[in-house]
Amino acid sequence: MRIRNKALRSKIMSAPDAARLITHGSTVGMSGFTGSGYPKAVPLALAAHMEEQRSAGDPFKVRMWTGASTGPELDGALAKADGIEMRLPYNSDPIAREKINSGQMNYFDMHLSQVAPMAWQGFLGPLDTAVIEVTGIREDGSLIPSSSVGNNKTWLDRAEKVILEVNSWQSEALEGVHDIYYGTALPPARIPIPLTRPDQRIGEDCLRVDPDKVVAVVETDSPDRNAPFTPPDDKAKMIAGHILEFLKHEVKVGRVPKELLPIQSGVGNIANAVLTGLMDAPFEGMTAYTEVIQDGMLDLLASGKLRMASATAFSLSPQAAERVNREMSFFRDKMILRPQEISNHPELVRRLGCIAMNGLIEADIYGAVNSTHVMGSRIQNGIGGSGDFARNAFISIFVTPSTAKNGAISAIVPQASHVDHINQDVQVIVTEQGLADLRGLSPKERARVIIANCAHPDYRPMLEDYFARAQKQSYGLQSPMIPSEALSWHQRFIDTGSMMP
Amino acid sequence: MRIRNKALRSKIMSAPDAARLITHGSTVGMSGFTGSGYPKAVPLALAAHMEEQRSAGDPFKVRMWTGASTGPELDGALAKADGIEMRLPYNSDPIAREKINSGQMNYFDMHLSQVAPMAWQGFLGPLDTAVIEVTGIREDGSLIPSSSVGNNKTWLDRAEKVILEVNSWQSEALEGVHDIYYGTALPPARIPIPLTRPDQRIGEDCLRVDPDKVVAVVETDSPDRNAPFTPPDDKAKMIAGHILEFLKHEVKVGRVPKELLPIQSGVGNIANAVLTGLMDAPFEGMTAYTEVIQDGMLDLLASGKLRMASATAFSLSPQAAERVNREMSFFRDKMILRPQEISNHPELVRRLGCIAMNGLIEADIYGAVNSTHVMGSRIQNGIGGSGDFARNAFISIFVTPSTAKNGAISAIVPQASHVDHINQDVQVIVTEQGLADLRGLSPKERARVIIANCAHPDYRPMLEDYFARAQKQSYGLQSPMIPSEALSWHQRFIDTGSMMP
Repeated sequence: MRIRNKALRSKIMSAPDAARLITHGSTVGMSGFTGSGYPKAVPLALAAHMEEQRSAGDPFKVRMWTGASTGPELDGALAKADGIEMRLPYNSDPIAREKINSGQMNYFDMHLSQVAPMAWQGFLGPLDTAVIEVTGIREDGSLIPSSSVGNNKTWLDRAEKVILEVNSWQSEALEGVHDIYYGTALPPARIPIPLTRPDQRIGEDCLRVDPDKVVAVVETDSPDRNAPFTPPDDKAKMIAGHILEFLKHEVKVGRVPKELLPIQSGVGNIANAVLTGLMDAPFEGMTAYTEVIQDGMLDLLASGKLRMASATAFSLSPQAAERVNREMSFFRDKMILRPQEISNHPELVRRLGCIAMNGLIEADIYGAVNSTHVMGSRIQNGIGGSGDFARNAFISIFVTPSTAKNGAISAIVPQASHVDHINQDVQVIVTEQGLADLRGLSPKERARVIIANCAHPDYRPMLEDYFARAQKQSYGLQSPMIPSEALSWHQRFIDTGSMMP
Repeated sequence: MRIRNKALRSKIMSAPDAARLITHGSTVGMSGFTGSGYPKAVPLALAAHMEEQRSAGDPFKVRMWTGASTGPELDGALAKADGIEMRLPYNSDPIAREKINSGQMNYFDMHLSQVAPMAWQGFLGPLDTAVIEVTGIREDGSLIPSSSVGNNKTWLDRAEKVILEVNSWQSEALEGVHDIYYGTALPPARIPIPLTRPDQRIGEDCLRVDPDKVVAVVETDSPDRNAPFTPPDDKAKMIAGHILEFLKHEVKVGRVPKELLPIQSGVGNIANAVLTGLMDAPFEGMTAYTEVIQDGMLDLLASGKLRMASATAFSLSPQAAERVNREMSFFRDKMILRPQEISNHPELVRRLGCIAMNGLIEADIYGAVNSTHVMGSRIQNGIGGSGDFARNAFISIFVTPSTAKNGAISAIVPQASHVDHINQDVQVIVTEQGLADLRGLSPKERARVIIANCAHPDYRPMLEDYFARAQKQSYGLQSPMIPSEALSWHQRFIDTGSMMP
């Protein structure tokens, strides 16, 4: 039995009944992080309710906070129902993205480590309702978290009323995997977070909730979104190869220990290629201190090469999710899921000395990185945790294929059309063309290395030409630029469909 | 007697003799932070030696690391002698700035908190010689630091040989003011830094040095640079007024405690106006956790309104420096000088919840801030500690007059020509026109508030026009922009001397 607390069992109701407890204009904090652990029934019912209300001439919108991205039954359904007035802190849902980029939805794109503390700080306003997926409820009313932790602790603490979804699809063996740290506070009461190793537990294995605040408990049995696994393509394998060579070199010259330092890895094709490559690399006893546990980590964990993966959520393909559910008793002492304010905390990223690997949309010749806005204005997903990790990492690596859209877009441009990571926070850039180690270089030195090592050969002469002319006519020569030309590649793409003249 | 250790006393020599121990092509780590505590004699002698060598046809250059800016006898003299091949991490010397912006000197502009750990990380290369000003040398060979700490601990530990300047101009009462924390390490050996209050001491009052590494001790008696105090002008007073109103409001609504949170303040006119304004504000028992102790803090400390100021250096006018030297026995238990990796440490800034106030060159309508590059290419000083504080602050405030060069430059522009602080790290922007509280706002909401509250009325209609058109023709509408126009104001200034058409 998943709901072992009597008082809470008495609050079981249908999803539509629970959804009706959410009111127009209110702020709702939902669980969910990269498609796992999000509520699956109440948001769908809420979307249906919104559509009904709207048909009846009553607008119905909420302000929505989550951990990060969720699933189509949440972001997709509510965006489709035009039910989100404002959304934070991260989104990857295509329908919501369309609403945001057509100006119909306000989107506040935040550092993921800052969401919980800022919610406590108060300027985001009150949180009316939390809707949280859990694996189960214990006799004492404590909650067994599900496949993501995200901001659930904060939503449960801050919300005036709480709706719980108990999802029996989630493995009961998840109990004990989580580490919920209850030691955070607002200043001046903040104290050191006592974590010094990725495998350390500093909290409790469950979430607390005031049972009086729980207004509904909904039973579900639905899988996480679980985007299918796409095997790494050739470019991803080449990028992974460059990174592995670089890491081997850093170990060889003694700048990184032979078991590496805790790895942080963004999601996707290239990340999986790097993780796959680590299977054959000479590093033993590695650890990960990262946002999500992804497909590529499972074999590493199974082989013992990866000793421990600490994250805030799973981000697995259906097959991998099934494997984790099936083998959870094997994996459970090799994984820890934490609140995202801990998985991404600058204090901890800096202390542990993470090796951070994140994707980018474009980098400019000086190494400023745009991770979020296509052509400077159209948001792709959001900054997510990349800022938490990149600025505080021991080595901050950014990866991308050198071109997109069949060569119509160069990932290396004269000037980034939007900046998420300043040049100080971008130490290594890798494309399939090669790797640029920018550590200790001044801007013009950076430009030469980035153009030579990372740019696609089709765009390299154009970049060399721009950089040469900028050095002749720039206002200052620390970071030479020509304002009238710096963003011309983006304008050309918008006008003609290609950055290539 | 300032040099109480016998072995080190035997190494006293003249500055020219000491300077000759520095070799061409080597890397030199100098003390100094915002014009205080830098060596005054050896760099001048080194510059003279460089000029001689160059006249004789032998080029002589060094790679130079410091804490932050220094004084004319160091950066100015060495830059004038064309003796700096590469400089890090911060510069405000006009001669060095000219060499950098004319492409004659490589300049690596770094987060000040990261200099020491990156020097340990190894990729910056070895440190050949440290040249460190101290107030005195004790019997046991330990060093009494002078008016700045900066990276001295790291330079003393890392350098192969050490030259000490013992400056008898520095007050002997400085002994005991410093707190040198020796608990830092490289990962995976990093542990929590045990500081939870600005007034806490976690280290020793002296610097350690291996006496065998000391190759020269030079006696000096020279004042710190001590830039003259410029009284706040009307615009600075208006900006300070807006900030004080904002802080009172934050206290009133309970988001900030009534003694505020530790204040971090950049230097200059506006900072001094804010500090002066705090004299009449209703906040008692305040603290500062900041980079420098500046003029405006002295009266606050004397009155008791400011209980404690923690920094890494003094940045005082000649009169204020004289006052501090004279009254050091009064001030010494109200001030702590720490290494800059501690004064600026992200872990500590976030834990303490600093209220950060930093200057800017320009901000764009979405709140991205350029603190370093005039017209995107010409470096002014450097990012300094602004990134350490802004990203981790409880409230991150940026200040600027709304125009520069008699109105020829607008501080609010369609797009920042260089980005040092991304919109997520810029929560409040203040000009003499007003204050924009951007917390919790999406990009288009931010743009409306920044244009309405901060832009100068002469530029406001141009910004409104750009923003309105961008919303019609932008590629995406999360952060509307027109690439072909976004940097046109900068090009116009370069071409015509004014951003105004």
